[in-house]
This record gives sequence, C-alpha cells and structure tokens, in this order.
Amino acid sequence: MSLVKSVGKQKVNLDFNKDFINLFGDKIKLNDVAFINRTIADLHPADVANLIENLDVDKRNKLIEIEAFNIEPEIFVELNESLQSEVLVLLTNDSIAKILRKLESDNALQILEKLEENKKKIVLDKLSPQDRFLLEEGLSYPEDSAARIMQREFTAVPSDWTVGQTIDYLRENKELPEEFLEIFVVDNEFKPIGTVPSSRVLRTARESKMNSIMREIPVLISVNMDKEEVGHTFESYNLVSAGVVNKDNKLIGMITGDDVVTVVQEEAEEDVLRLAGVGDEEITDGVFKKTKRRFSWLLLNLFTAIIASIVIGFFQEDIEKVVALAVLMPIVASMGGNAGMQTLAVTIRAIAKKEISSGNFFKIVTKEFIIGVLNGLIFAIIAGVVVQFWFEETNLSILIAVAMILNMIVAGLFGILVPVSLKKFNIDPALASSVFVTTITDVIGFLSFLGIGSYFFLN
Amino acid sequence: MSLVKSVGKQKVNLDFNKDFINLFGDKIKLNDVAFINRTIADLHPADVANLIENLDVDKRNKLIEIEAFNIEPEIFVELNESLQSEVLVLLTNDSIAKILRKLESDNALQILEKLEENKKKIVLDKLSPQDRFLLEEGLSYPEDSAARIMQREFTAVPSDWTVGQTIDYLRENKELPEEFLEIFVVDNEFKPIGTVPSSRVLRTARESKMNSIMREIPVLISVNMDKEEVGHTFESYNLVSAGVVNKDNKLIGMITGDDVVTVVQEEAEEDVLRLAGVGDEEITDGVFKKTKRRFSWLLLNLFTAIIASIVIGFFQEDIEKVVALAVLMPIVASMGGNAGMQTLAVTIRAIAKKEISSGNFFKIVTKEFIIGVLNGLIFAIIAGVVVQFWFEETNLSILIAVAMILNMIVAGLFGILVPVSLKKFNIDPALASSVFVTTITDVIGFLSFLGIGSYFFLN
Repeated sequence: MSLVKSVGKQKVNLDFNKDFINLFGDKIKLNDVAFINRTIADLHPADVANLIENLDVDKRNKLIEIEAFNIEPEIFVELNESLQSEVLVLLTNDSIAKILRKLESDNALQILEKLEENKKKIVLDKLSPQDRFLLEEGLSYPEDSAARIMQREFTAVPSDWTVGQTIDYLRENKELPEEFLEIFVVDNEFKPIGTVPSSRVLRTARESKMNSIMREIPVLISVNMDKEEVGHTFESYNLVSAGVVNKDNKLIGMITGDDVVTVVQEEAEEDVLRLAGVGDEEITDGVFKKTKRRFSWLLLNLFTAIIASIVIGFFQEDIEKVVALAVLMPIVASMGGNAGMQTLAVTIRAIAKKEISSGNFFKIVTKEFIIGVLNGLIFAIIAGVVVQFWFEETNLSILIAVAMILNMIVAGLFGILVPVSLKKFNIDPALASSVFVTTITDVIGFLSFLGIGSYFFLN
Repeated sequence: MSLVKSVGKQKVNLDFNKDFINLFGDKIKLNDVAFINRTIADLHPADVANLIENLDVDKRNKLIEIEAFNIEPEIFVELNESLQSEVLVLLTNDSIAKILRKLESDNALQILEKLEENKKKIVLDKLSPQDRFLLEEGLSYPEDSAARIMQREFTAVPSDWTVGQTIDYLRENKELPEEFLEIFVVDNEFKPIGTVPSSRVLRTARESKMNSIMREIPVLISVNMDKEEVGHTFESYNLVSAGVVNKDNKLIGMITGDDVVTVVQEEAEEDVLRLAGVGDEEITDGVFKKTKRRFSWLLLNLFTAIIASIVIGFFQEDIEKVVALAVLMPIVASMGGNAGMQTLAVTIRAIAKKEISSGNFFKIVTKEFIIGVLNGLIFAIIAGVVVQFWFEETNLSILIAVAMILNMIVAGLFGILVPVSLKKFNIDPALASSVFVTTITDVIGFLSFLGIGSYFFLN
C-alpha cells in the first residue's frame, strides 16, 4: 500500500521501480484482486498502461483474465498498439463492445481496426444503431486518413446566433460533447465558416453575434486527408483543433491537438524505424514477432551484399596481385554509404515536411552535387595522405583519392534522387530508400576503386 | 493577382508552383512593393513563410530588405530555424524589438535565443521593464527546458469562486490572454489544484463553484523539465494544455498543445538526422554550411573505416592464398551492421519513450540475444548455401555461417548496450550510437570471418 502511495497520481512519467513491478506481479499470481483494483484505481490510466507494459507476459495475461470483465477503456487506449492487439484476443466480444461504448469515436475506431473481420461484425452488432453507423462509416475511409482520428462529437452553431443563445444552448443540451476547445460556426448548409474558442465566448457580452467574434478558418481538413498531412497542417498553422469536412464541404467531425501529437510522433518515429528496416516494432513484442519483422530487411540486405561481393569477384586477379586493394576497398564503400545516408535523412525529412517542390528541386540537387564534390575533395586528400603513410605507394594513394571523389558525388546525388523518385511512385521513401542508396554506394565504391585500380594503375 | 487568388487563404499546405515563385521573385527584383504587400496580406502567415523558404537566397535577402521595417512577427515565427537566424542578422535592433513586443513570451524567447549576447542586451533594453524581466528570467533556464516553450500569459482563479464570478472576471479583465483552453484553479499560495476547460465553464450554471467542476491535474510540469519530457507527458496523458510550476510549486506559466506538436516533431526528426550524422541541417542551408555540418561525422567514419581496414590488414597473407575471402568478407560485416542498426533504432525509440527501465532491462537484452541467435542461424544457413553454390567449397560455407552467427549476436547485444550505456552517461544515444555499433560490427565481422578462416580452415 505504501508503495502505491509513493507513485500516486501527481507523479509524472513514473519510472516504476523493479520492486514495485515485482510486488504487483506477485499480487497477480496470488489473485489479490483487492490490491490490484486499489492500485489501478489510484493511478492515472496512462500510468496503469505503463505498469502493464512492464509486466512479464504470463503475469500480464493473468491480469487480463482477472480484469477482463472490467478493464477500463481509458487504460486500454493508453496501451501500446502491439499490446492492444494481444489484449483484444483475450477479451470477450461483450467486453470489447462495452469498451467501445464508453470511448469517443476516434478511439473506438482504432480498436475496431485491430479486430478480424468476423469479430468486428459481431462486436458492431452489439452497439446501438447510431454508434454502429458512425463507426462503420469511419471504417469505410482509408486507414491513414483523417477520418480515422476524427471524433464525430463536436459543437456547432448557426452564424447569426448571439453569444447568449449559444451559452443557453450549451447549458441545456446534455448530448453535446463534455468538452470542446472551439465552437464551429456553420452556414445554412452546415459548411463551417469560422470558429470561436470557448474562452472567447466566455469573455464576450451575451448580445454579441457569434459571427462578429469568430475567427476565419485557415484550413479545412478533408475527411480523406492523410494523417501525416493532418499533422503537418496542425504544425504549420499552430492549431489546437480543426473541423473535418466531407466531399461536399459539410462539417462532419473534428480533430483535436492531443490526437495529432500522437500521430506526429508516430509518423516521425516510423521514419527512424523504417530507415533502419524495422516496421512498427515495439519493445514489448515477443522474440519471434521481432525476428520475423526484421527478417525481410536482412534478407534484402543479404541480397545487396551479395551483389557487392559479385562486383569484387570480377577483380579477384587484381586483388591476388595487390592485396592492399582488399585491405582498403571497404573504406571507399563505407564513406559513400555514410555520405549517402546523410543526404537521405535530410531529404526524407524535407519530403515529410513538404519542403521539396518542383520550384526548388533542381537547386537542391545541384547543392547536393556540389557538397559531394567538396566532401569528395576533402576526404580524397585525407584518405590519400593516410594511405601514402601506410603503404608508401603513390599509385594507391591517387587511386583511393579518385575513387573517393567519385563515390561521394554518387552518394550525394542518389541520396536525393532515390527518395524523391520513390515518392513520385507513391512508395514511402523512408521504407525503401536506404537499401537502394547503400547498394549503389557499395557497388560504385568497389567498382570505382577496384576498376580504376585494375585498369590505370596496375596493368 | 489571379495567381494570388488561386492560392488564397483556404488552401491547405499549398505547394507553390514554380511559376508563382518565379513571378514573386521577379516582382521582388522589380521592387514592386504594392504587389508584394498584397500577396503577403492575402496569405496565411504559415504560407508566406513557406513562400519565402522557396525563394533563391538573393531574392530572399532583397525581400527582407524591402520588408525589414514591417515584417510580420506571425510570419517570422513560421520560418524554419535556419532561416530565422539568417533574417535576424539582416534586421535592425528596432525591428527585432518590435517583433518581440507583439509575440507571446514563448515565441519571443525562441527569437532571443538566436541573438548574440551583445545584440540580445541591446534588444532587451528596448522592451518594457516587465517584458524584459519575464524574458530574462526565461533565458535563465536551460535551453531545452519547459521554461523556453511556456507562455507567461494564462488565466487562474481561486478555488472558491463561482462560475458567475469567473465569467465576470474574464469579461472585465482586458489584460488576460485573448484565448485560453483551460482555466487554472489555484489555492491561496497560487499552487494549481485543478483545471476547468473553458467549455465546461460555458456549460455550467453561474452559481456552481469552480472547485466542484474542476478536473484534478494529472501532472505538474516543472519549469526545469526537459522539453522532450514535456512532449512525452502531453502524449501520455493526452493533454491539450498544462500548467508550469516553479520549484515552490507555484503556477508561473502554461504550455499549449500546438507548441508541443512542434517539439515532438523536432525531437523525433532530430533522432533521424542524428542517427544519420547530420545535426540540425535544414534543406534551405547553404552548401558550405551543409558541408561543414556533415564533415565531422564523415571524418569519424573514415577513422572507423580505417580501423576495419587495419583488421583486414592482419590477414593479407590469407587473402593472397584464398582470394575468395576478400570477395565474401563484406557480407558478414554488412549483415552485422544492418542487424545492429535495427536493434539500435528500436532501442533509441524505446529510450525516447521511456519504455526501458531497470525493471525490464535484463529481459530486453536477453530478447535481443535470442533474436541475434535466431537471425544468425537463419542467415548462416542462407549465406552458407549461397556460398556453397557459388564457390563449391564446404570450408568456406561453414566459415561464413559461423562468422554470421557470431556477428549477428554481437550486433543485437551492442545494438542495445551501446545506446543504453551512452544514455547512462547522459550522452544523446541518437547522436553517437551508430558509429560505435557499426565499428563494432565491422571489426567483429572482418575479424571473425578472416580470423576463423585463417586459423581453422586454411592452415
């Protein structure tokens, strides 16, 4: 009990100590439901989720069995996605339906997305016709669209209402969402024409018209807009909430900033993980899931490594004659790979932030070319000097210098051309670029170093 | 004019076409101030910033000269950081002071941060004593702390006030911030004890007490808290705004969700860029700035590549005898490097999200070890079979298989141990890990393949 107190509701991001996690685990084993429920009730849902994520798999499953009948929706939505899927398998359809009923539509959708078709239908059938309709409609939109993170609950008033009318309406209508940041002002056709922050309504005299205090809407978010684009829009225009419209520009929902924080973070993290070739891996995933997720990337990499080896294979005779070639050849390839990844990371970030357009594309590519030449020259000199001291063989020094310049230019150019081209074909550049770029820099690295070495200096 | 209309205020993330950017550039050259001002007035500040970012450097400088006397603060804060610094150099101290006066304190701080000490003092002296005091206090906090993104403008009321009293106070006090998402409820010592969303005040009868409708504060953000931690807190607890307290727990400011979206995105992007060895590079940076930023990483990489070459150098005789070793040796190193980067990316993300604790550390390391063994076995078999078909030399196939298993295990272990250790020493794992990990996997890759090859199969 004292331990629970010490991690009470006021504590931020509590880093549960091992002892407490062990204690909680033991109580699960002992089926001490009183202790478990008291702990869960004392903590913020986000902290309970954190605690559950820190449990061993067997204890976690035991806990879910114990809690299944009354796991709080607020806790469930805080679990990481991978765990949500695990928990859903263990819950009865009735429990899932019960959770859905208590959630706002965006959170409910996220859970439904994870169910198999069959189960999805059964669960939907347990909901009220109205809830079911809204959720089914939400599911009909693409997975990464604004529709999946918007809530259908929002507050809108006609533009000719006064502040007083609005306040009375808000006080009397118990069906409106409990909280909202902005009130939407709509025209006769339910098209949004402005927003009034709740605080401004509070600060304005009752007789003022809503349309006299409303703020023009800087952007309308279409229900089909990509989630990543929504995040970008919120960031660009510093929004805290935004209305979502259907194809007729009628207001059908809203997105709030707290959901966008999650999207923005996920998208940016996704880029890190994808560049490194691990899909949506979570630290809580099991060994086999992790191995499977990483397998295809490694297989692809094996394939490209073999291509590089085949290139080296062409020059076996030269290597036998001048074995120093084998010693030095990884340097050029590795430098090219790193320079390519630098350009790639900057480009992928710029693509995500929509900073590359047809207007500046040529300028940016030219820049990368010049950087490639500059870095090539700098590192040609450094590598040349090092090799001169090491092997005391001028031919070899000139060789590595020339190959270095070539590969650095190639690295810069392909570091930008590969992701931009993939984007043109609607392939996520973060997902596929690095394999292409490193294959190219490896092949050019070995080919230029061994090829030039073979033809000009060694024959 | 028609072009300007077509990119009017309603358009989202307008991807300016080349023609419009060129037209705008020409008007700058022609000093057509009327056209420029009309265009800027017609667009959302975020879109103007986007337009400026897309101009050539010389046209951009010309525009700033033209607009210097009246560049809108709203536009300035939307420019990317690199451009803000460039613009600040060109602005007079009076213009900067004028911009600062119009901004909320968090945005003003961000600009001040970028000035040299000398200029900072001169500009601060031009402000009112009160503004100067608040900004100087803000600057006294660490650069990455909550203090730098908090605004000093917020709304707080005593807990025993009624809703009616609160509304009257809000209507009468013109000095309060124009908009706020939540009203803070404070005790006698100005410690925050709860928040009431503006919308809830609107929906509650005038006679209700504020403390009866307030929501308990799930977390207090300390003014010293790291910005990244603030983002994590907002995400964990789904906040749209949060109060910031000083060391005596008194409320001194607040942070809103729109600022956090920017922080979260920047931090996550920082990780991508740092893993790839490019600091805070922007796509708009000049060639020399970019080359300089990338130089030190490439130099470090050259150093590690030379270490790998030295390792290969130990085995020159063996390579001369069996040149296939040179052909195949990059495969093991490359696979290790990729497997290491996979583990690294997952670990860095988990560290950022505080998902690794002393409670689960050992479990996670064990998992990576097992994944290393599994992937090692799988790719040992695949690589072994490929080499068998290619060289028809069983010794070589067994050699690559054994080296592969070894290096995959090393990759998994160091992929997690390196970033976690760096974090322990308070070094940003995203910044330094990948050099360490790839050096280790390169060295172990070459050493195991050539070393085992030399001792067991070839003597």
